[in-house]
Amino acid sequence: MQSDYSKIIDPVKLDRLAEIAVKVGLGLKMGQDLVLTASLSALPLVRRIAEQAYKAGAGLITPIFSDEELTLSRFHHAYEMSFDRAADWLYEGMAKAYTSGAARLAVVSDNPLLLAGQDQAKVARLNKAMSIAYQPALEKIAGFYINWNIISYPTSAWASLVFPDLSIVEATRALAEVIFTASRVNNDDPITAWANHNWQLKKRSTWLNNERFSALHFSGPGTNLTIGLADDHEWQGGASVSRNGVICNPNIPTEEVFTAPHAYRVEGHVRSTKPLSHQGTLIDGIFVKFENGQIVEAHADKGEVVLNELLDTDKGARHLGEVALVPHSSPISASGLLFYNTLFDENAACHIALGQCYSKCFHNGESLRDEEILVRGGNKSLIHIDWMIGSGNIDIDGIKADGSRVFVFRKGEWAI
Amino acid sequence: MQSDYSKIIDPVKLDRLAEIAVKVGLGLKMGQDLVLTASLSALPLVRRIAEQAYKAGAGLITPIFSDEELTLSRFHHAYEMSFDRAADWLYEGMAKAYTSGAARLAVVSDNPLLLAGQDQAKVARLNKAMSIAYQPALEKIAGFYINWNIISYPTSAWASLVFPDLSIVEATRALAEVIFTASRVNNDDPITAWANHNWQLKKRSTWLNNERFSALHFSGPGTNLTIGLADDHEWQGGASVSRNGVICNPNIPTEEVFTAPHAYRVEGHVRSTKPLSHQGTLIDGIFVKFENGQIVEAHADKGEVVLNELLDTDKGARHLGEVALVPHSSPISASGLLFYNTLFDENAACHIALGQCYSKCFHNGESLRDEEILVRGGNKSLIHIDWMIGSGNIDIDGIKADGSRVFVFRKGEWAI
Repeated sequence: MQSDYSKIIDPVKLDRLAEIAVKVGLGLKMGQDLVLTASLSALPLVRRIAEQAYKAGAGLITPIFSDEELTLSRFHHAYEMSFDRAADWLYEGMAKAYTSGAARLAVVSDNPLLLAGQDQAKVARLNKAMSIAYQPALEKIAGFYINWNIISYPTSAWASLVFPDLSIVEATRALAEVIFTASRVNNDDPITAWANHNWQLKKRSTWLNNERFSALHFSGPGTNLTIGLADDHEWQGGASVSRNGVICNPNIPTEEVFTAPHAYRVEGHVRSTKPLSHQGTLIDGIFVKFENGQIVEAHADKGEVVLNELLDTDKGARHLGEVALVPHSSPISASGLLFYNTLFDENAACHIALGQCYSKCFHNGESLRDEEILVRGGNKSLIHIDWMIGSGNIDIDGIKADGSRVFVFRKGEWAI
Repeated sequence: MQSDYSKIIDPVKLDRLAEIAVKVGLGLKMGQDLVLTASLSALPLVRRIAEQAYKAGAGLITPIFSDEELTLSRFHHAYEMSFDRAADWLYEGMAKAYTSGAARLAVVSDNPLLLAGQDQAKVARLNKAMSIAYQPALEKIAGFYINWNIISYPTSAWASLVFPDLSIVEATRALAEVIFTASRVNNDDPITAWANHNWQLKKRSTWLNNERFSALHFSGPGTNLTIGLADDHEWQGGASVSRNGVICNPNIPTEEVFTAPHAYRVEGHVRSTKPLSHQGTLIDGIFVKFENGQIVEAHADKGEVVLNELLDTDKGARHLGEVALVPHSSPISASGLLFYNTLFDENAACHIALGQCYSKCFHNGESLRDEEILVRGGNKSLIHIDWMIGSGNIDIDGIKADGSRVFVFRKGEWAI
């Protein structure tokens, strides 16, 4: 139970975080409905978000809560056949809500190691069933049909992992402060701070779009990887315009600029630089080899079963759907902390994602049909899983169509 | 927040209640999925039900939680247009889950007066929007396409209403004991106790079915009402066989035998004998007049706005969909308590329901098409709302087709 520790968290800052989620994260429109997914452990933030959203003119807020106790109960008591089941009707319903114009907000607060002690084969099966069931909703989200946002809430279970040397109370307080700072809630004027930040990210993505690299070459310890970029790719970062015309900040915090790799033009090998916490299990020390864009070899020091099951989700799971650049000096990275939470760790390091690409990473992406995205090298998959490959030792070159090279990153920092 | 009081409740009995819900209430099949709706205030029971259900072989349990704080937040902060919105996508999804074979369990624990202080016109609009959105799910439930169950959890807010003279702690403990007793959890062998109880109810409904009354005549203070029964009506009580072949006990507790009135053959007037708590508001002192089965006049001492809005939901809302017989000496009635909760109060008194009828209250009801049920006098509506008309002063005669009369109830008790 996390609820005992919720009183530790500064209520004024929590209110501001809720306001940022609604106004900057979602850019919620007057009268717009909202589907809100969260763990029960995030209830204090969910209630504040609801208040802020109704004040901002939300139509109907529908919370869909998960409960870590129920998840564990399933692993402790359910029969074998349970682990291939997922609530397809619920995710199809969400997709329908998004098609009807609802926005989507996800609050992330789960214990990153909730399922670490459970049968990893069952975890992998559950992940696969979830990925398949979730597909209709993911399509609307990844395709930016709607404005959406992911934001975090500091639970004590999560905080104890990030700050193993602190007491639970101190750890929770510390994680709350890190979340508030990274989410720019500690500024006097968070809304303006986000406007400035979005502008900085926009400058980076504009430079990259003008350079029109055909590939990026990553080199560093254990990594020698050439990532071909998709034809007509477009770099994105910070605020996004969704197809419904709303400007949203899908991730809070965010420090990345990102685009679509060419699914069949990735060569070489790469080693992960941070552990990946996926659905309650940790995958660490990933090493993979690419040939013609496909992962042909994959190892992990920890969680190899879950990793390989993920790669077997479908054909696209072995190809890349995103490459993202984050300087090693980014505020989240500078904290020196390991968050076991992709929303934070991906904003501390350059990363790549297995699986589905974002259509908005293509020029005029919103008006392209699925086949047109595939032709340009976009990837299609049931999954989209980011993992970190950046560090202070990574160099990145931009490679142009004529083979000429431009320094993009040196020792983990922007070289421009 | 109810959670502080949950520790007062005997955990062993709560486990038994959960087991009764799964084994007697649902009769959950091996491998069957379960959609579980509950307020967050019922979390301790929900978690125990999940454990019992997974142990009994549940496939996937999908909890859909509501939160009283979010409901209130909407009334405090939302704009006008919010109050005509409901999550149609969610209830359509549930209907889909039921069509695919999932069972349905609802845990009732809400504060009966949650919305008593709110704008009653908004409450009425919300109820109407909910009724319309809920329709696809209600059809599957009322039509007994699946096995389903409603069960209660004692929250402190509810307990304080039922036992206004006790401390919150004592009230919660007392309500828990009443729920345990009425749900037959306090027996040494609850499963056998339920088998016996179901048998007693079966004997009553069999007698009524053999009598084949064409109408029932209710008389008592403020009441002179003739309820024509639907053609081919069938009395039900206790365990039901759902169309999926599973035997379930839809209501726990249950003390009633019930059938379908003829929607156009109800004449006279009737006065309610207990308040009706509907979606957080209290409707008390109801007095209505029927002509040709239709309510042509409706008053209430309290909640008249909400009552009249309910009656205006649709055409069928002014006609009856159920008549149920409960002796005044039933254990719940004998407690002398007012529960402000239909699941309990309807099992303390004879009652009628506005709106939708149950197809299983017709001979071979499962194989009848909607039109065939209407032709027999069955009622169709978006709502199904029970309210209490029985007391120790009510006499009921059964009237046969030839006009002859048989005593059914005298002074609130079975006369047979």
